[in-house]
Amino acid sequence: MSQTLDGVGATPLSGLGTALWYRPDEFPDPEDVEAADPETEHERFEEARATAREELGAERERTAERVGEEEAAVFDAHLQFLDDPQIVEGVEDAIDDGAAAEAGVARAFGDAIEQFEGMEGMMAERADDMRDIRDRLLRILSGGERVDLAELPEGTVLLAERLTPSDTAQLDPERVAGFATMTGGRTSHAAIFARSLGIPAVVGAGDALADIEEDADVAVDAENDAVILDPDEATRERVSAEREVDVKEERVETIDGREIEVAANLGTTAEIDGASAQGADGVGLYRTEFLFLDRESPPDEDEQVDAYVEALDAFPEGRVVVRTLDVGGDKPVPYLDLPEEENPFLGNRGIRRSLADDGDLFETQLRALLRAAAEGAGELSVMFPLVATVEELDEALELVESVAADLDEDGIDHATPELGVMVETPAAALMADEFAARVDFLSIGTNDLAQYVMASSRENDAVSHLHDPRHPPVLRAIDRSVEAAHDNDAWIGMCGEMAGNPELTKLLVGLGLDELSMSAVTIPDVKAGVEAIDTADARDLADRALAASTKEDVVRILSQES
Amino acid sequence: MSQTLDGVGATPLSGLGTALWYRPDEFPDPEDVEAADPETEHERFEEARATAREELGAERERTAERVGEEEAAVFDAHLQFLDDPQIVEGVEDAIDDGAAAEAGVARAFGDAIEQFEGMEGMMAERADDMRDIRDRLLRILSGGERVDLAELPEGTVLLAERLTPSDTAQLDPERVAGFATMTGGRTSHAAIFARSLGIPAVVGAGDALADIEEDADVAVDAENDAVILDPDEATRERVSAEREVDVKEERVETIDGREIEVAANLGTTAEIDGASAQGADGVGLYRTEFLFLDRESPPDEDEQVDAYVEALDAFPEGRVVVRTLDVGGDKPVPYLDLPEEENPFLGNRGIRRSLADDGDLFETQLRALLRAAAEGAGELSVMFPLVATVEELDEALELVESVAADLDEDGIDHATPELGVMVETPAAALMADEFAARVDFLSIGTNDLAQYVMASSRENDAVSHLHDPRHPPVLRAIDRSVEAAHDNDAWIGMCGEMAGNPELTKLLVGLGLDELSMSAVTIPDVKAGVEAIDTADARDLADRALAASTKEDVVRILSQES
Repeated sequence: MSQTLDGVGATPLSGLGTALWYRPDEFPDPEDVEAADPETEHERFEEARATAREELGAERERTAERVGEEEAAVFDAHLQFLDDPQIVEGVEDAIDDGAAAEAGVARAFGDAIEQFEGMEGMMAERADDMRDIRDRLLRILSGGERVDLAELPEGTVLLAERLTPSDTAQLDPERVAGFATMTGGRTSHAAIFARSLGIPAVVGAGDALADIEEDADVAVDAENDAVILDPDEATRERVSAEREVDVKEERVETIDGREIEVAANLGTTAEIDGASAQGADGVGLYRTEFLFLDRESPPDEDEQVDAYVEALDAFPEGRVVVRTLDVGGDKPVPYLDLPEEENPFLGNRGIRRSLADDGDLFETQLRALLRAAAEGAGELSVMFPLVATVEELDEALELVESVAADLDEDGIDHATPELGVMVETPAAALMADEFAARVDFLSIGTNDLAQYVMASSRENDAVSHLHDPRHPPVLRAIDRSVEAAHDNDAWIGMCGEMAGNPELTKLLVGLGLDELSMSAVTIPDVKAGVEAIDTADARDLADRALAASTKEDVVRILSQES
Repeated sequence: MSQTLDGVGATPLSGLGTALWYRPDEFPDPEDVEAADPETEHERFEEARATAREELGAERERTAERVGEEEAAVFDAHLQFLDDPQIVEGVEDAIDDGAAAEAGVARAFGDAIEQFEGMEGMMAERADDMRDIRDRLLRILSGGERVDLAELPEGTVLLAERLTPSDTAQLDPERVAGFATMTGGRTSHAAIFARSLGIPAVVGAGDALADIEEDADVAVDAENDAVILDPDEATRERVSAEREVDVKEERVETIDGREIEVAANLGTTAEIDGASAQGADGVGLYRTEFLFLDRESPPDEDEQVDAYVEALDAFPEGRVVVRTLDVGGDKPVPYLDLPEEENPFLGNRGIRRSLADDGDLFETQLRALLRAAAEGAGELSVMFPLVATVEELDEALELVESVAADLDEDGIDHATPELGVMVETPAAALMADEFAARVDFLSIGTNDLAQYVMASSRENDAVSHLHDPRHPPVLRAIDRSVEAAHDNDAWIGMCGEMAGNPELTKLLVGLGLDELSMSAVTIPDVKAGVEAIDTADARDLADRALAASTKEDVVRILSQES
């Protein structure tokens, strides 16, 4: 008999396959392992270290490549602990005293972990890293096979308590039928990567997931927010049926003829083809961090021009909205002096960093963008992240002008792109009229906007219930921004997670957004949604949602629609 | 000839005295110190450790008492490093090898600091603590006198690069004529404590401050944002004159008869008398954290009743606004399970924590408040911190009702206080109409509101320029909140730093605030300010400020008024 677990669908995709548990921390009690002679145990420890080093190196590389240097950095810490003289000596001493390599590892790491934990709470994170590397060594020593996430058998449904960003980055969409995790929410990193990779995924399925046994038949029915154990025939057919993706190459409009631009969010040039294949009208958010992270020195002007032109040439009839570099205290960049910050999300990020930068990083990027605007086939738009004041915007706009003048002087071919501002801070929503009067467009980044409006970090599970764009204050901030944009003859788009949720398309069209930009995989659904909308109906829905006092009310109003 | 340095006046006070430099990190190069025999050096090291332990213990106690457990916690880390076996052994080994205690300390701590720094950026803070304790030991070993900040000679003007919160907490307002620091802004902790302690202070005076020599004559002219070296006779007279404080016991109104309540912010019962002495109409913000921090178990109901009643009895004709417990990941409380958070300002704090708490901490506080409302002489008002949704408010209001029903049932005397909401999140400003319809009053906490609206931490110097309530988006959020409150028959106050700045009183009255609550020391100036205001004029000023597009414009508009 089939059994259904409720969770949160991360992608509008479904998959059917064989359960495989990913339990990176499973091995026998190290103190129960019988020790051979010290020489053998020393060898075993050395071999385990070598294997761990190899595994970590491979995972680091894959993560840096597919996700980014930021997420890959955690492996560096692991590699360091592997060679920590105090720990290594501790293991060796224990082995000399007759312990098995397992017990030596458990004790030496145990001491180090305790020391770190004892110092102060701040150390807890390092202690977690130490636990991870200890568990890796113990698993290797126990002969436990590593579940190589990159090489899973075809048709695997991966089950786990949680997947780290680097875990998720290893998954091969061609092989894995889907994954389900006990923890996580719609905006958790695992969910975001699943959407970006196009993997059927249900997160936050809860403790009940643990009851599913290895090799069980499992359907990941993310469209219906469910994990189904032993699905019946009807479910199997429904879920395993090739998803009917009706890719619309052409632009879409509502029933009454209002065109809505549906574009893709891109994080690397590698994603351009996928966006085209899903029928993106263009790129609504081209993050440029990939050009700057994962390297020892910044990219030069020519390298940047190439990257921007590559995207512009892929959308000759469309628009590519490039966001200028958005780094801060939470994203390490070796050649920038980024201090650790107590509250990185409230720190020196985005345009603040670009304007405060002594070097010419920002100027070089603007030069590259102005050159790309002349060279690429599509229309280039440039937007600035995390703007909070008119002063910042004015300064950025002046810099664009001065860069254009420099290029003129040097006789270098260039064009001035459309210019825009991201609405991510409450300040930007409150000042949207002043911003819109100065630029061509606004683009709402709902992930950051919601976290600042609600004063709740999107990475903190304890307050994740507050981090939902359906909370009325977030809707009011969006409404105010849209009105300010249109009053000032600017167009306005949205490039946060909210834009790619087909259940919210009607609301967003009703709120008046001109463009929606999202993970490529959701584009067909959103395009289909737009074509089923009547604008007056949608405005009525938006008005009712705006009049609601609680998220619960908004959810009820939205559910009455579908 | 006198010389003037510009800075930021932290208090509306001035003082004149003799310069004394506070340089906790000054001592000879440890490697230049000639070593005596190892036995002597071992003794010197042990004595230095004992002295350091004594100093730290005394400073810890004073800080916990005068500022809070939170700020005192840093000393625990220092004490721990003092006894770290690895470090102590490192020093002892070096001495055995013929080094002086100084070189031993420098090398052993140097190794530990390097190790911490090498691991990852997260360690930087611990490395700072290690540097502090290393420098303390080296200073003690060098025979350098400790500047005991609590026992400064009378008439001292303390000069320093920066003062930590615990440094500032040591200062005795009776002895110190003032202080000036090279770094810091108006909302830095040093400035806030200076206001709370009533010490003339100028912060952010820049590198030029370093040119002032020990024992120089210095005037701290905080009213004019200046530090004056070798002041001339006229300046001396002006600055050293007893400040004419015209304490107004009675309530004040504008020229045209609009009454503005001017109240005090309190952090402990010890501050009640000072607030009365400055003519406070009541208490606009009574923080209750002092009851909960710095102890191993929570205060019981009776203890809380006493603390609330003490304040109510001090203002029999006035109002005391109590804020319910506001703790989170940035404030350690031993008996609460508060995890470290990556972005504590966006974490599980304020009402979130109170409602999520499994225990009955919040319920007990509400019971104590309802009992105090019946028992105390003044009028009790209760407000909830960091509310972001109507759901949270409704839940808190229901709890008040159920607590009242319980007290009824138990036959315990109680009364229902006025109830209110703090406007600290952008969500609260955006939803102020819904909130005001449900409660009696709103109170704007500008420190938090500005940091969330501007998405900039008030504790991060790199973005402190953004953390200023004169930025137009903050003014717009305030304006929106005031209008929503009055439309819904609620009164609205302000209890952030902005409320105590006499230069902004006219703007705030113009924006329509009914109450201003502040550090006691600024009450006389603000009361005098209110009496000089014409409401129509003030509204005109507010309208002009609201129409400004930049902070610079707002500052210019305000300066034209004075």
